[in-house]
Amino acid sequence: VVVDKGVDFAQYFCTYAFLYHQKEMLSDRVRMDAYFNAIFENKHHFNGKTVLDVGTGSGILAIWSAQAGARKVYAVEATKMSEHARTIVKAHNLQDVVEVLEGSVEDVTLPEKVDVIISEWMGYFLLRESMFDSVICARDRWLKPGGVMYPSHARMWMAPIRSGLGDQKKSDYDGAMDDWSAFLEDTKEHYGFDMSVLTKPFSEEQRKYYLQTSLWQNLHPHQVIGTAAIIKEIDCLTATVNDILKVTSNSISSITLENTRLSGFGGWFDVHFRGSKVNPAQQEIELTTAPSINNGTHWGQQVFLLHPHIDISEGDDLSLSFTMNRSKENHRLMEVELECEVKRSSGKQLPPFRNKFYIE
Amino acid sequence: VVVDKGVDFAQYFCTYAFLYHQKEMLSDRVRMDAYFNAIFENKHHFNGKTVLDVGTGSGILAIWSAQAGARKVYAVEATKMSEHARTIVKAHNLQDVVEVLEGSVEDVTLPEKVDVIISEWMGYFLLRESMFDSVICARDRWLKPGGVMYPSHARMWMAPIRSGLGDQKKSDYDGAMDDWSAFLEDTKEHYGFDMSVLTKPFSEEQRKYYLQTSLWQNLHPHQVIGTAAIIKEIDCLTATVNDILKVTSNSISSITLENTRLSGFGGWFDVHFRGSKVNPAQQEIELTTAPSINNGTHWGQQVFLLHPHIDISEGDDLSLSFTMNRSKENHRLMEVELECEVKRSSGKQLPPFRNKFYIE
Ligand SMILES: Nc1ncnc2c1ncn2[C@@H]1O[C@H](CSCC[C@H](N)C(=O)O)[C@@H](O)[C@H]1O
Ligand SMILES: Nc1ncnc2c1ncn2[C@@H]1O[C@H](CSCC[C@H](N)C(=O)O)[C@@H](O)[C@H]1O
Repeated sequence: VVVDKGVDFAQYFCTYAFLYHQKEMLSDRVRMDAYFNAIFENKHHFNGKTVLDVGTGSGILAIWSAQAGARKVYAVEATKMSEHARTIVKAHNLQDVVEVLEGSVEDVTLPEKVDVIISEWMGYFLLRESMFDSVICARDRWLKPGGVMYPSHARMWMAPIRSGLGDQKKSDYDGAMDDWSAFLEDTKEHYGFDMSVLTKPFSEEQRKYYLQTSLWQNLHPHQVIGTAAIIKEIDCLTATVNDILKVTSNSISSITLENTRLSGFGGWFDVHFRGSKVNPAQQEIELTTAPSINNGTHWGQQVFLLHPHIDISEGDDLSLSFTMNRSKENHRLMEVELECEVKRSSGKQLPPFRNKFYIE
Repeated sequence: VVVDKGVDFAQYFCTYAFLYHQKEMLSDRVRMDAYFNAIFENKHHFNGKTVLDVGTGSGILAIWSAQAGARKVYAVEATKMSEHARTIVKAHNLQDVVEVLEGSVEDVTLPEKVDVIISEWMGYFLLRESMFDSVICARDRWLKPGGVMYPSHARMWMAPIRSGLGDQKKSDYDGAMDDWSAFLEDTKEHYGFDMSVLTKPFSEEQRKYYLQTSLWQNLHPHQVIGTAAIIKEIDCLTATVNDILKVTSNSISSITLENTRLSGFGGWFDVHFRGSKVNPAQQEIELTTAPSINNGTHWGQQVFLLHPHIDISEGDDLSLSFTMNRSKENHRLMEVELECEVKRSSGKQLPPFRNKFYIE
């Protein structure tokens, strides 16, 4: 796939050029604590070492790396945020250690290879934004043999959920279609213009918008009604772009709640900071974006809803086949196919269903 | 200015590919009535003639032109909406008259020149979207000498207004800055990361967002507190791109309400269908987007707010200097400079003020 750099900048990078957006990430306490602890409880990885921060944004991870003892930190940022990062680096009097470079990490040339690559590259449901591609590219070019990735591992999770949102979206969709009917009549009556042949494409457009677009949600743990399954594991030291282009998994989830309803599925991720085999962490740190009462993150969970929901109960088993591909129009967005079979605890099997979703 | 076509498509054209968006325009009764009447009350312009519809969207204006008797209509549309237009043309059994061509009108080749160019090219405050450039290009290449433009004339208007929105936006801005202060303290205390050097750029970013971005509003006529001034007139038959690149005007507005407040300025436009000098309309039609109780349009008005407002009264005079340029980053967006001097009816002159706004 050839990516038009101008389009990519207009569609993707532009948001990161706003301090407001960087502030949102810097206000995510769970995210911040994880990186902070990962760095400062594993100073041996940083002390006297060289570090590359892929997508430094405000410069936070680069500055922490320097404060943890790094000899040199290369902080690469594609947007004009680099200028602010430079200002902050100076304000912390670290300009001799942290070198801010404006540009895509793909295009940057460093004077040396590095011991550590640190990056906060995770998008919604881990892979949205496809920024890990850039980390892989940086790793293959600039990480020394035996070097360490921060984070070192990542996983995607999925679990059955209940939610009232599905019914709401369905009624929004129905409302949009009622509107359309009234509009058709009006336009025909007043202007002799008959658009009724477009009812099908219009309903497909609205269906995609209301029913097939996955949603950002901060799920309450009580909304999770069955066991969560790991649908992808990534070793950040060895994964190739090919490994993450497509995510496929077959998993089983057991319903753990009595007499409830299956409204759809919630997806989230976690990442770990474990260092590497030859150079392990002293303190392993986990950053999870699972449903949580007090430790929610700005990533929330990505929710895929069924219309209508399915009545379900404890002991029922779901076998779920999940496929995620990148959107052809925009490689940073995703398309998901979910296929699900419900096997009742009674042994009865429901007819399988299949849904397509867009992560926009 | 060189425009990256891919970026332009991603930023601009994409919205027009949604039926939902076309439906919004087709539901605008004032807009629809104006074009409908302009065409059907001036059939002599269409009967047996050739027509070019620049940006046909759903095909509506092309179909009406055909129904008014056109011999041939070329309906050009840049987006995939062209496929729907073609479907609708067939549903009206007009496929022998209306030829739908997918592509930018700039790139299209027609087999003949046309008698009429019709287009609904008007953006917010007339010129946002810069689509009239494309109409000019089409006119210079494809309109026969003596041909007619639909619409034939356009004007931009501006008037002093009162509104509570200015205070609200100011308090939103203040809230954002309070948030920032709390964020600075938190981030410093918890993570030793001091971003206070960025307070100025953050406040500029927020100021631009809350205070310097013009707003879409459906103003009530009572909110207009003084005389409206014409700040631009365009003859669609002769205007060049150079004539519309920059809009400058100096105008006087008299306050017509006692003891009120000047909260800012409202901008709108009208267009006229008058045919041409050699081939005038039988019925002149006007489409106005001025503040109105019952005849509002989807264009609303574009509102430029002052912070704080100024107490003002009947008989006070405002001399307003208005400059609008295209944004360097996106030629379809605008930047406005307003300079205003208030002269009290008592003769007293207030110090002039100057504000910069972005039409996003
Ligand atoms: N290929 C690439 N090259 C350089 N910077 C990139 C990049 N892809 C994404 N980025 C930048 O990476 C950042 C990701 S957001 C994380 C910012 C910062 N490290 C923090 O943890 O707070 C954004 O600022 C984005 O502009
Ligand atoms: N340069 C260009 N070439 C072809 N189509 C263009 C264009 N610039 C804008 N357009 C199209 O012009 C349309 C303007 S909206 C008006 C649609 C229709 N004529 C109606 O009146 O309802 C959009 O569909 C847009 O995609």
